[in-house]
Amino acid sequence: MNASTSPAPRLRLRVDRLPMAHPGDLSALAGLFDAGAVPPEQVVAVIGKTEGNGGINDFTRGFFTQTLMHLLAARTGRPAAELLRTVPCVLSGGTEGVLSPHYVVFSRGPARAGGAADAGGALAIGTAVGAPLPAHALGRWTHVRSVAAAVRAAMADARIERPEDVAFVQVKCPCITSARAQAALAAGHGVVSADPGRSMAYARAAGAFGAALALRELPDDPALEAALLADFDIHCDRASVSSGVEVEADEVIVLGHSPAWSGPLRMATAPMRDALDIDAVGAALAPLGIAPALQVPAADRARIAAAFVKCEPDRRGAIRGQRHTMLEDTDINAQRHVRGAVGGLVAGVLGDGRIFVSGGAEHQGPDGGGLIAVIGTTPSGLRPPPSRGGAGGPAKPDPRRPG
Amino acid sequence: MNASTSPAPRLRLRVDRLPMAHPGDLSALAGLFDAGAVPPEQVVAVIGKTEGNGGINDFTRGFFTQTLMHLLAARTGRPAAELLRTVPCVLSGGTEGVLSPHYVVFSRGPARAGGAADAGGALAIGTAVGAPLPAHALGRWTHVRSVAAAVRAAMADARIERPEDVAFVQVKCPCITSARAQAALAAGHGVVSADPGRSMAYARAAGAFGAALALRELPDDPALEAALLADFDIHCDRASVSSGVEVEADEVIVLGHSPAWSGPLRMATAPMRDALDIDAVGAALAPLGIAPALQVPAADRARIAAAFVKCEPDRRGAIRGQRHTMLEDTDINAQRHVRGAVGGLVAGVLGDGRIFVSGGAEHQGPDGGGLIAVIGTTPSGLRPPPSRGGAGGPAKPDPRRPG
Amino acid sequence: MNASTSPAPRLRLRVDRLPMAHPGDLSALAGLFDAGAVPPEQVVAVIGKTEGNGGINDFTRGFFTQTLMHLLAARTGRPAAELLRTVPCVLSGGTEGVLSPHYVVFSRGPARAGGAADAGGALAIGTAVGAPLPAHALGRWTHVRSVAAAVRAAMADARIERPEDVAFVQVKCPCITSARAQAALAAGHGVVSADPGRSMAYARAAGAFGAALALRELPDDPALEAALLADFDIHCDRASVSSGVEVEADEVIVLGHSPAWSGPLRMATAPMRDALDIDAVGAALAPLGIAPALQVPAADRARIAAAFVKCEPDRRGAIRGQRHTMLEDTDINAQRHVRGAVGGLVAGVLGDGRIFVSGGAEHQGPDGGGLIAVIGTTPSGLRPPPSRGGAGGPAKPDPRRPG
Amino acid sequence: MNASTSPAPRLRLRVDRLPMAHPGDLSALAGLFDAGAVPPEQVVAVIGKTEGNGGINDFTRGFFTQTLMHLLAARTGRPAAELLRTVPCVLSGGTEGVLSPHYVVFSRGPARAGGAADAGGALAIGTAVGAPLPAHALGRWTHVRSVAAAVRAAMADARIERPEDVAFVQVKCPCITSARAQAALAAGHGVVSADPGRSMAYARAAGAFGAALALRELPDDPALEAALLADFDIHCDRASVSSGVEVEADEVIVLGHSPAWSGPLRMATAPMRDALDIDAVGAALAPLGIAPALQVPAADRARIAAAFVKCEPDRRGAIRGQRHTMLEDTDINAQRHVRGAVGGLVAGVLGDGRIFVSGGAEHQGPDGGGLIAVIGTTPSGLRPPPSRGGAGGPAKPDPRRPG
Repeated sequence: MNASTSPAPRLRLRVDRLPMAHPGDLSALAGLFDAGAVPPEQVVAVIGKTEGNGGINDFTRGFFTQTLMHLLAARTGRPAAELLRTVPCVLSGGTEGVLSPHYVVFSRGPARAGGAADAGGALAIGTAVGAPLPAHALGRWTHVRSVAAAVRAAMADARIERPEDVAFVQVKCPCITSARAQAALAAGHGVVSADPGRSMAYARAAGAFGAALALRELPDDPALEAALLADFDIHCDRASVSSGVEVEADEVIVLGHSPAWSGPLRMATAPMRDALDIDAVGAALAPLGIAPALQVPAADRARIAAAFVKCEPDRRGAIRGQRHTMLEDTDINAQRHVRGAVGGLVAGVLGDGRIFVSGGAEHQGPDGGGLIAVIGTTPSGLRPPPSRGGAGGPAKPDPRRPG
Repeated sequence: MNASTSPAPRLRLRVDRLPMAHPGDLSALAGLFDAGAVPPEQVVAVIGKTEGNGGINDFTRGFFTQTLMHLLAARTGRPAAELLRTVPCVLSGGTEGVLSPHYVVFSRGPARAGGAADAGGALAIGTAVGAPLPAHALGRWTHVRSVAAAVRAAMADARIERPEDVAFVQVKCPCITSARAQAALAAGHGVVSADPGRSMAYARAAGAFGAALALRELPDDPALEAALLADFDIHCDRASVSSGVEVEADEVIVLGHSPAWSGPLRMATAPMRDALDIDAVGAALAPLGIAPALQVPAADRARIAAAFVKCEPDRRGAIRGQRHTMLEDTDINAQRHVRGAVGGLVAGVLGDGRIFVSGGAEHQGPDGGGLIAVIGTTPSGLRPPPSRGGAGGPAKPDPRRPG
Repeated sequence: MNASTSPAPRLRLRVDRLPMAHPGDLSALAGLFDAGAVPPEQVVAVIGKTEGNGGINDFTRGFFTQTLMHLLAARTGRPAAELLRTVPCVLSGGTEGVLSPHYVVFSRGPARAGGAADAGGALAIGTAVGAPLPAHALGRWTHVRSVAAAVRAAMADARIERPEDVAFVQVKCPCITSARAQAALAAGHGVVSADPGRSMAYARAAGAFGAALALRELPDDPALEAALLADFDIHCDRASVSSGVEVEADEVIVLGHSPAWSGPLRMATAPMRDALDIDAVGAALAPLGIAPALQVPAADRARIAAAFVKCEPDRRGAIRGQRHTMLEDTDINAQRHVRGAVGGLVAGVLGDGRIFVSGGAEHQGPDGGGLIAVIGTTPSGLRPPPSRGGAGGPAKPDPRRPG
Repeated sequence: MNASTSPAPRLRLRVDRLPMAHPGDLSALAGLFDAGAVPPEQVVAVIGKTEGNGGINDFTRGFFTQTLMHLLAARTGRPAAELLRTVPCVLSGGTEGVLSPHYVVFSRGPARAGGAADAGGALAIGTAVGAPLPAHALGRWTHVRSVAAAVRAAMADARIERPEDVAFVQVKCPCITSARAQAALAAGHGVVSADPGRSMAYARAAGAFGAALALRELPDDPALEAALLADFDIHCDRASVSSGVEVEADEVIVLGHSPAWSGPLRMATAPMRDALDIDAVGAALAPLGIAPALQVPAADRARIAAAFVKCEPDRRGAIRGQRHTMLEDTDINAQRHVRGAVGGLVAGVLGDGRIFVSGGAEHQGPDGGGLIAVIGTTPSGLRPPPSRGGAGGPAKPDPRRPG
């Protein structure tokens, strides 16, 4: 969490993608600790997919987090409450269809001695937790700025200097529960929405705008507050934002490439233009040297360390001209629908169900679509993916239309 | 329905894939009738995907069927009740995720005058409706034989002589509702299962075995009754079977290639080995001359007339070693889960959500997987796909292990 | 539907509560026709409970309606399309818990010859269908007035002169589908809400206000439009309103007492103050001479012809101080929750699951509660229930707080 | 847990019914500890209702339990793992409809000095945890005997000598997960069912038979194993059994009346004959001196300390002759349906949503029904309810038909 002063020793990221038998099962991580493979104090962040419903009443996230913090507390001697504030644990509920419950543990340690420096650096990680935000600030420009500050802090922590070297920004925002909304109203404050589901959407939008602000894709213009959940041409193609009742401050994880890091890990990100955009999967794999003709070959599959997807049911009710029924289904939540479908698509190409597929992609990638990010190892001295997450191209002249 | 006596005039199949705004909306077909594009009396079968839940209490299928039969009755002058017995209407409920409600209308008319005969023939269709079966016969060998007889009748109707020229067999079987089970028990007959969901599975299994029997992949050995829902190494890779409360007799649609037919339509089928088998999509497209590198190009997409998929949640609880949660979800039915995921996968490659994705793939393709079949037009004098549905290879020596 | 000119012969209402095996099963009604018990042309309205989910994508209502209209058309010789416009068929989807799929058929014929006139008259029915309303008028004061006009027309049809003799007003309103909203917007009209679920709520609110207007509980003040879905102290305790995609004009059924009618049927209505208000069940039974100490005795149960309930999950998240979880459940729709619970409560007292329990009770009874109405036969010359639905008391001085 | 040696000091039970904001919220209990109202070491059992779906994939139970054990460990200094084995925590997931998430804490301490002994004693509690059972023993007679032994141990712990003084037996049994089933099969052992849901039902049945055995309502006849889930005329009207993946040994809580206890608490139990049996609610209230005419008056409501209900959807598909749809609903689990309905019924009479309503009532009360138990305080020297749970009557001559 603390950005070191230079000349700092070079760092190395380790990524472990682990199975869980249920949301309270962290035995796989405990096993890595027991074996000495991962020093507990080197764990800096966790991103995972638990098997709840992904909605307001999904408590698998809280259960996993409580279990994780108890485990880290027991192994590091630090209080669980302090760990909760400093080690971001971002979970998405819902393992619909072929998706498999799993969690990705990011641990950060010194580079191996004697290794030659990678020419362009390697995959780096940094984290930050913002200040607690009152309910009435959520989903507003204050919130956007707060997220941006946290993203910048996480970049510094990762020793990433240039925004274009950032590959992926994961944000977890608080939302406005019924209780919080009533407390705010009782204190004389308005909230952006008293509907919990709607407030989660606003919080995700603010998270995406905050990431765009930190990545210099948007100006710091409070007038843009009106664009939240309104102008979907504004989107950040490297931001993945969740929102949940279980956090009270924004948690940020930044992944990108930095010369201060070494090791074989690289990451690439690509926008998905809709729920059928399978070519985006190819675009996120290409910078890693993987070019599937349908499914990724087994040899390449072994090089994929983790994958992250944001998606959403197209709000206009159709995909490429064909009506979909996700938004009008009283039985299955629309986010569960889209996670299942896009999860199937991406899992089909990757040949693996361990994918972080998260709904609620407002402003995170193209409207009606989302984005995909992949972490992989490179067998040889392959350089990092090009800046701007591998999906780049020239910097956009109008920062308000980054997409 | 009636196989003509030879020398019969050559035939031509027309396939229309039409949208619906709701399960009672057949305005698109009425429009084709109004425009004279499709003579109502040439409609021989309909396969569609309605937006219900696909379970016992899915009434979108009955609603669509009633509406269709009223429309055909009004346009042909034939009684709706008679049409119901002679025009198979096979519907799968559940348009999870990116799937789009739609229906495929098969109409059968004389070949166009003056057209040169296609060397290997063209896509042919035949239908048959079996005799009504009592509840206690469902899911047993009597049922298997009854389906096989209907498949043979449909082959004759399609003028397909060789089993290896059959590309796809669609069967719709009755199931055992609680009421039917109690009536059977009151009459002194046992039923294969009093659980409606389980009886649907048995009916689908019997449908798959019946298709295999007619296609000479299985011997007519009543001892094989014990293999129903037990030995999943036995599967028919060209059978797609549904089961529902709304039918009382087996309905069969056979599609294949026959020199008695002309026109540009061809069909290919491939088994899917599990819910991630995206390469099977490629295998079903290859005989049509389509080789996607991820998504099918737009020009080729226009040549795809319809697609049919069978799939199921792997009963062993894992896919390629990763645990899935479909079978232990109290909130979402497992079939809805798998349709959403495999629908996303196939739709991603085809670039289109109008796919018939049906769960309950017992013995229809490999265990834990299923199959995919695609109808497409050929721009030039491309020959039909190779026999055995395009996925074939040499005839299997042991007919009990056709997979 | 046609108000007769006086001196008209006295009328008599018949109420049949019939089971259905599925939403397309009207065999019980066909049986009554076959037996000559009910002349088909005397059927003036149907209210029923089908086994869908009660949401936007519940097609059991459309299926039942189509089947009913085909049956009536076949038996009366009138076109189905005309019947659809003149015979209100109000259905509520969702038979959660102990609720049983059923429908109540109201038929209207001449009084039996030679019968002595009941002192205070008997239960009367009248119906009306309003003019089709454009999407942009729904949920606004124009809509309120349109409903009120239809209620007055239905009262005249029922030969009920005084508003206080009305016992129950059933209204079915159109709602704004995504397609209708987009069409309205394209034509330059704003809609009250583009969210289908929200527009259904507005339509129900307008229906309740319209009933209150016709019953002289509210003034015709367009400024009250702002109270729709905002001031829940305004409610009509005799209005039951549904909303659905399948209607394009308001359909109204009025039930009440009139000296122009004879027979043993009476009706009483009582507001429910919340989802636990079991005493309201007793209040609606008392005017019928039924005073249960918990469950209604079997002898009295036989006298109950039909029961109608409106209810909703308390929007404040608690009932009598205890948190409920209906509004934050991603798995089960909140309306399904409350129908199940209130259905259980009422069914427990009545000892019967055939109850029309409908969610979405905005302004229909107290906020967070709803209302209950019961039709029963009286064994002797019992007078009709007191005016104002049996739950009355003195007329309220302030019509905007009808209590 | 420890049966004291005589002459032991008299004991006193305290019952606290506490709200929770989410399944990890035990702040209300922590508050009682902080205030000194409840000494943490006196907590002997917890029964609660969490807001999950109540199915296999309901993790709210595990989350609550983990949180409880951490809290007790922090306050008592005993290891959490030991507490887990000695303090039964029985949770039922699913707060459908009007049900409110809550938990009932039972604490056991010395009787207050100077109090006069209650003539017939007072409500007593005892607990026991059985030995861990292998998967292949679950749902068999071995399991029945194991439960019976634990019930007898809990009776001794409660100082209840006569079976007829037992009012309520709560059992929590392990079930057979997919993993446990495969492990057992790999070790050469058959399991009663490899289907997790079915195994839960068998475990509940064995729990009910075990309670009946200990209460001398059934003989210890292994031939009765065949009656498990088969002969539903055998039922224990004082047993409430849950089953879940989170326990590996049977946990038992016995409540009843004993002269060794003092205080105002009493308990009564009554069987429910079906999901509409509201009169059973009255039967369970009568021994407490509460006779509601519909809803319990407010003064009496304050005397009710806790209520427990077991129920289930009638397996024959109808209730009192009317078809229900719980068992054929693909969207909502049947147990969720019935909990919602019966919860509404009981909450309506009690005027309170804090009721432990648990599905899966096999052999616990009449077939298709279940049972209800109520704990209340008595204002004066009211004697305990009559033996056999207040619903008694003369001892049944044939112990195999206890109902």
